[in-house]
Order: sequence, then structure tokens, then C-alpha cells
Amino acid sequence: MDIKYQNRLDKVREIIFNSGLDYFFISSAANRYYLSGFELHDPQCNESSGYLLITKDNFYLLTDPRYEEAAKRILPEDNIFIYRQNKYERIINFLKEIGVKRFGFESVYLSYDFYDQLNKHFELVPLKNVVEQVRMIKDKDEVKSLQRSCALNHKVFEQIELFLTTGKTEAEIAWEVEKLFRTGGATELSFSTIVAVGPNAALPHAIPGKTKIVRNCPVLIDMGARVDDYCSDQTRTFWVGDSPSKEFLRTMELVKKAQEKAIKEIYPGLPIKDAYYIAKAFFQEYGVDKYFTHGLGHGIGLETHEPPAIGPLAKGVFKPGMVVTIEPGLYYPKWGGVRWEYMVLITDNGAEIL
Amino acid sequence: MDIKYQNRLDKVREIIFNSGLDYFFISSAANRYYLSGFELHDPQCNESSGYLLITKDNFYLLTDPRYEEAAKRILPEDNIFIYRQNKYERIINFLKEIGVKRFGFESVYLSYDFYDQLNKHFELVPLKNVVEQVRMIKDKDEVKSLQRSCALNHKVFEQIELFLTTGKTEAEIAWEVEKLFRTGGATELSFSTIVAVGPNAALPHAIPGKTKIVRNCPVLIDMGARVDDYCSDQTRTFWVGDSPSKEFLRTMELVKKAQEKAIKEIYPGLPIKDAYYIAKAFFQEYGVDKYFTHGLGHGIGLETHEPPAIGPLAKGVFKPGMVVTIEPGLYYPKWGGVRWEYMVLITDNGAEIL
Repeated sequence: MDIKYQNRLDKVREIIFNSGLDYFFISSAANRYYLSGFELHDPQCNESSGYLLITKDNFYLLTDPRYEEAAKRILPEDNIFIYRQNKYERIINFLKEIGVKRFGFESVYLSYDFYDQLNKHFELVPLKNVVEQVRMIKDKDEVKSLQRSCALNHKVFEQIELFLTTGKTEAEIAWEVEKLFRTGGATELSFSTIVAVGPNAALPHAIPGKTKIVRNCPVLIDMGARVDDYCSDQTRTFWVGDSPSKEFLRTMELVKKAQEKAIKEIYPGLPIKDAYYIAKAFFQEYGVDKYFTHGLGHGIGLETHEPPAIGPLAKGVFKPGMVVTIEPGLYYPKWGGVRWEYMVLITDNGAEIL
Repeated sequence: MDIKYQNRLDKVREIIFNSGLDYFFISSAANRYYLSGFELHDPQCNESSGYLLITKDNFYLLTDPRYEEAAKRILPEDNIFIYRQNKYERIINFLKEIGVKRFGFESVYLSYDFYDQLNKHFELVPLKNVVEQVRMIKDKDEVKSLQRSCALNHKVFEQIELFLTTGKTEAEIAWEVEKLFRTGGATELSFSTIVAVGPNAALPHAIPGKTKIVRNCPVLIDMGARVDDYCSDQTRTFWVGDSPSKEFLRTMELVKKAQEKAIKEIYPGLPIKDAYYIAKAFFQEYGVDKYFTHGLGHGIGLETHEPPAIGPLAKGVFKPGMVVTIEPGLYYPKWGGVRWEYMVLITDNGAEIL
């Protein structure tokens, strides 16, 4: 097992043991992978590839026979517990055998059903953001991976811009994006590409369909892919044609200025919610804040959306090593909208656009 | 709103009201889409695009501003509730306003954290497999979609077989599979393609990597994609080269016979677990059952893995309209393994391979 996992496990142990707990049960796929290197993905949201149990001086991977060989390739056999049928019962018995009586669990990632089964046998302590608070600060290798991932995103935007011509459908453009990412070295998209033409650009999470680019219309593209395990996420809004509407130009100007203002004012120590309010206040000044319908951005790493969420309710302050998106947008159901998104690294002095 | 959604909602209402409940809160993405047509996907497993609340004679979609315009395009405004920041609080207030005191919820799909918030204000009744038991029986249109989806899967296997030559890596083959699916009309893969060369074929859930096909080795491909919203899922195991090993030929023969036997004996009314035991018993006869490390198959539809799971603990019987996979496999860490998977439709008389 790579030393990086040992270090990460130790950081998590410190948080757990400071909360007075001897055991921590991990059910989030990304957290599991971050701490052990085992399976970044679950097969489906309602189906796990396995769980981690962290103890004072050890850890166990609990998984099913489909993953037994994969587990043995990366972990010592003593650290692997295979549950077969009757998963709940087997896991409960395993926990009892090693002496667990009380443990912390990830309350956001454990289903009520699984909780209910475990709760009959153990004292469960709900915890939030334990591994996430460690993951939030990226180490040098993680930053390098995110830089490589974002560099490919920039390259794909350069290529896709040339592809945006009248007659192309949203779905065709989305597929072209995927091909460019994959042939550029990404292992997968990190989320379904959003390509929104005309009024569809007013749907912040539009699904690419049969709508075609016509002369003089906005095209919003929000895309990302996984490189070296790490996600990228950027949005650009283009105008196809030579006569951009006044509303479009005006909206683009406001969105870019709001973004610029927020990025310029982010430094280590700034309350995270303040970044949101910088953009919000700027839009208020121009009377358009009600068209800014989402947060300003989010952390990014092994997952596209990670803490911190940059919104009005955010807690905590920016810290060096955080990588977040800054993505103000304004949406008008009548004609579309504009969103512009960068990934930024919080450095010792401010925020650096990747 | 399409009449099909009304019919589905009515079926769910019947189950709920027979359990003495006036309200049902839905948090599974696939169940939400099945009942309303709103958003088949959540952006991430820990992030919802919205929830459904089913009442005696109405229903509500609860979602956030990112999806407001998308919701308005398919549902009357009176049926939409938009929560902004402070999601839990807003949802709790909304439920109180319409008079909810006690409601059923999907215990497998609701996180402990969300449960805990709601439980402070309402009486919550955990339910399992409510919408799933309706979804399990596919209607004619769904069967047609599954047939189209599976037909493309067959076509891609014909094409990919020609692509399997020495020197190709697993990752290259997986990407070729994806291109064939997408250019063939699929909107996305329904799960990450498994391409496992040589000993990797012993990992039932192998991740395609840099391993290259060499002369005379097994290649296992498990793949599926979404067509008309419905998933396909088939596995084939190939031998690349002209001298298949004795173990491979023998294993292939046993796997195919086990599959044939199970499919032949499936008919409406057969306990689902019996299908598993038919394959298991056949493998036992030849002393290889310990290499059959997973269930025999699973339901398939809007999701790749749906009820029923065909394993030793399965409850219930096969019913006409079910579509399930039948996928026995035998795995040998030393040299690889063989899995062969068909999708079958349960008809009035037996099981029909799609």
C-alpha cells in the first residue's frame, strides 16, 4: 500500500479519535478510493463496491466476491473481508468479531436502511465531512493531476469551438466533446456534458437533445472529464453567428466581470460565503441578481462536486490547496443565458486560474 | 403529462394506500423518472435533481432552481416546488404547509442524514421496493425499447469481435465499444464497459487498463448502453488466437450449458431463486461451483441492475413482463474466466432471449 494512503488514513484517524471514536465506517466511494486506492466507482448509486472500516491502528476493506481478486491485487489479504450473500448479516458479524461496539459513520452516504440494520447491534455516531475535509486540501500531486485535467479541458474547448456551426445538434456536439476528451487522454467524462442551444441555455442543467444551432444563437457548453483520476469542469458560452444580441453581449459582460471580481478578491482566510456575495452584490448593482439562480461554485477533485460549496450558507474560509470552480451565470428563459466557469487553485496569496 | 405516468402513479398509489399511508416521498432518480418523466439522472450519487411527493390525488416535484425551467417544460407549475438554499428546511416547511404528518419513504434511497432531519418533524414509515415492484413488470413499450437496446448490443458485439487483435489494449477496446454504441444510437453507456484480457478476466468487475491482447488469450467483454432510455447488458468471452486452451474450452462449455439449462427451465411461477440453483447445481455436478462467485442475473430496465436479483436469497416468482439477465460465469485467477450473458424476457410460456 502506497505511503500516501497511510498518511491520509492517519489524518482521518486523528479527526475520528479526537471525536472519541475507535472505529469509522466509510461508505462513500470517493472517500474509500482516496483512503485505499480501491475502486473509485460504485456500479450504481444504490449498489456499493465495498466499505472501509478504519480502526485505531489498522483498516479493513469489506467487499463482495466480484471484487475479491481486485482487492487482493492492491491490499494484504488480512485487510480484506469478503461478504457473500446476506451482506448486512455478514458485515454485522464481522464487526462483532473484531470487537466493534460503537462507531462513527458517514451520515450523508449511508442509507437509512443500512443504518437501521447496523443500529440494532451497535451504537452508531453520525459524522459529516470527515474525509471530505481532508480531501478539500489537495496535495502537490493532486494539484498536478488537476492541472493536467484542466489543461485538457482548455484544449477541448479550443477544438470544439471550431465545431460549432449551424445545423449541428446539441447531442452531436456533446458526442464530439466526449470524443475529444477520450482521444485526448481522459478515462471518462466526469459528468454528462451540457450543450444548450438558444433558450435551452436558460436551463443550468440542460440535457443535450435534437435542438440545432441556427445562425445567431447562444450555445452554452459545460463539460469535464477525468484525467489521472481527477475531474475537470469548465463552462463557456459562445455566440454562433456574427450578430450577437445586445442582451447576450450585456449578460456576457456582467457574468465575466462578476467572475473576475470574485476571483480577484479570493485569498486564504476569506469566508467562503463572501465569494458568493461578491458576485451576488455585483449582479444586484445591475439589477440582474434574480437571474443568478445557483451557487458561485464548488470544490473539485476526485468528484466533480466536492466541498466546499460556494453559496450563501457556506461555512469556513478559503485555504491554500483548495481547488474550486467559480461559475457565475445569468439565465433568461426567453432567449437563453450565459455561464462562464474557471477552476481556480487557492494559493498562499490568492486564487490562481488553472 | 403523458397518461402513462398517471397510470404508473395510480399503481404506486394503490400499494401505498393499501399500507395505510396518505403520502409517499420518492428519492430514487430512476423511480422519479419512471413516475414523472423528470430527470433520469442525479448529477452525483450524493446530490439529487429532485424528489417526488405522491399524495392521494396529486403529486409534487420538489427540485432546485437549476432545474426550474426543465420542470416547467414538462409539468404544470402547481405541481412544482422549488427549494433554494437550506433544502431540508424548505422541504420540511413545504410538507407541513400541505398538511403532511406521516409519510412513507424509500429506505434504501434516503440517506440517514436526510431521514434524521425529516424524522424530527414527521412520522416516517420506511418502505422498500414499492416503485420497483411496478417497474419490474415491463409494459409493451418498455419491452420494445429493451428489444431495440439489446439489438444494438448484439450489433456492437458483431463489430467489436473483428477489432480484437493482438496488441490492442483493454482501454482501446472499451473506447471502441463506446464509439460503436454511440454512433449506433445510444445516448450513453449504461455502465462502464468491462474489457478483461487474460487473467484479468477472473475479475468479474475488471477496469479496462493497459493490458494488451496477446496471441491465444481470453478476452471478456461485458457491455451495455442506453437506447430509448432503456439499458442493455450482455457479456461475451472470446478467445483470440487459434489454440484455445483446454481449460477455456471446458469452462466455456460448462458456462453455456448452465445458462441454457437455466433459461430453458424459467417459466412464469418458478421461484426466482430456483433459477440460480439450477445453474449452481449444474456447476456442482462438475465440481466447479466454487468458481461461480456471483448471482445468476438481475432485472434490467431504466437501470442496469434492478430487481429481481437472481440469487440464493431471491424472493418471489418469475412473472410475464420481467426482463432479466442470465449470466453464469466461472473465474480462475491463474488464467482468467468465462462469463456469458443474455437478456431474457419472461413470457406467458417461458423465457425468450432478446
